[in-house]
Amino acid sequence: MTVLTSGNQRVKEARKLSRRSVRTERRLFLAEGWKAVAEAATVPGCLVEVFATPAAAEEHAALLGGLPDVVVHLVEERAAESLSGAVSPQGLVAVCRFLDRPLEAVLSGRTVVICADVRDPGNAGTIIRTADAAGAGAVVLAGHSVDPYNDKTVRATVGSLFHVPLCTEVTPAEAITAARAAGYTVLAADGGGEVDLFAADDLLAGKVAWLFGNEAWGLPEDVAALADHRVAIPVLGRAESLNLATAAAVCLYASARAGGPST
Amino acid sequence: MTVLTSGNQRVKEARKLSRRSVRTERRLFLAEGWKAVAEAATVPGCLVEVFATPAAAEEHAALLGGLPDVVVHLVEERAAESLSGAVSPQGLVAVCRFLDRPLEAVLSGRTVVICADVRDPGNAGTIIRTADAAGAGAVVLAGHSVDPYNDKTVRATVGSLFHVPLCTEVTPAEAITAARAAGYTVLAADGGGEVDLFAADDLLAGKVAWLFGNEAWGLPEDVAALADHRVAIPVLGRAESLNLATAAAVCLYASARAGGPST
Repeated sequence: MTVLTSGNQRVKEARKLSRRSVRTERRLFLAEGWKAVAEAATVPGCLVEVFATPAAAEEHAALLGGLPDVVVHLVEERAAESLSGAVSPQGLVAVCRFLDRPLEAVLSGRTVVICADVRDPGNAGTIIRTADAAGAGAVVLAGHSVDPYNDKTVRATVGSLFHVPLCTEVTPAEAITAARAAGYTVLAADGGGEVDLFAADDLLAGKVAWLFGNEAWGLPEDVAALADHRVAIPVLGRAESLNLATAAAVCLYASARAGGPST
Repeated sequence: MTVLTSGNQRVKEARKLSRRSVRTERRLFLAEGWKAVAEAATVPGCLVEVFATPAAAEEHAALLGGLPDVVVHLVEERAAESLSGAVSPQGLVAVCRFLDRPLEAVLSGRTVVICADVRDPGNAGTIIRTADAAGAGAVVLAGHSVDPYNDKTVRATVGSLFHVPLCTEVTPAEAITAARAAGYTVLAADGGGEVDLFAADDLLAGKVAWLFGNEAWGLPEDVAALADHRVAIPVLGRAESLNLATAAAVCLYASARAGGPST
């Protein structure tokens, strides 16, 4: 089997997916590492092709051999590196189909997450990972939120991108309206909120859509006003606030706990 | 007043503090931005000197004018940038004295945090910030943990480095032994732990020392075994685990909540 160089046409085409515009046009993205390949393989129709160095192909022969409908290309190490945004490339990169679905199709489960203008790739990825861990049914990246298919976000989800139903390209208002129509109480996480998270179990035991804002400026007032309640995580020390991803974790686990035994 | 260039001797000496070895030798570190300067000013004896561009000095004249015992140097923009690790330098950098104290001096409050081999600067900083928010009494960075005075960590604490009593340069075993001697129940955060966090309120209502491990490999078995209990955050979805800083947030807020009304 030929080992492709970084100048090969297929490798070049895949490499273009490091650009958001190309990803959006083709609705394809890159995911790196054997775990990502294994996770992508669990989503029907997601995995398009895999680029692997001979060493990685040998190490993960069982995984790659179990992907009958997926083309595996052997590539030189430099070609694999050229497809990777990681500091330590793993020699294995998958081209995957976009995972996002329409709003109506993703809003399910007892808890869903709506991010409004979350811009940091690591934060967005960590929120998706945490939503998965806390058993949330969906993540909506609304407004000017970061592209979830950017390599840093994909990496920060540690596979959860392939688990949690995802919606993008809606406004926060659209997401809030749809969530409410689907029976969710919309709770804005807001340091200045009128409800104390520690006293919100009655709310949290029901169907909740958590609304999180931008890491630097939080939720604009007009967006927070669209929520049913604004919920504050108590700050017991002298910190001004929590980091967005940690705040989301505290809220989502408060919901998970209030919902009773895991489903 | 003279505006110092980046070649000035004082600026050069301050710039050396970007190296861990120099920081450790001098027990001095750099903190950037007016918030950091304001926070450092609240800790007696912490603030040594401040470098400010003329623009920043003018903008923050009230703050700088309120620091009678601190030398403020005006510096050229490039000199300020040379002292900054930030993407967007703020033109204001303080030289501060180390804040860590001996183990016996920091272990106070109902909840304390022991980090064993936490290596990522952002994680360590976020844990310090979260510990502050959740009202924890101390953070111990034990074992081969990251240097808390590294610029990324300082930034990630968003001022909480100046709030929370800090201890470094002890082993995890020393920290655990001291915490137990001080009346803390030591709880290791461990995905495979035998206690469910959601069922741990009785433990959490008491004095707790939370033990967190490395972001990649968690807690070594022999260290986890030193804890009184190993506590798992329930994973309700298909995520393998939580990110370290988010896991710490969930644990620390579970403690804060179990402790009853804020103090």
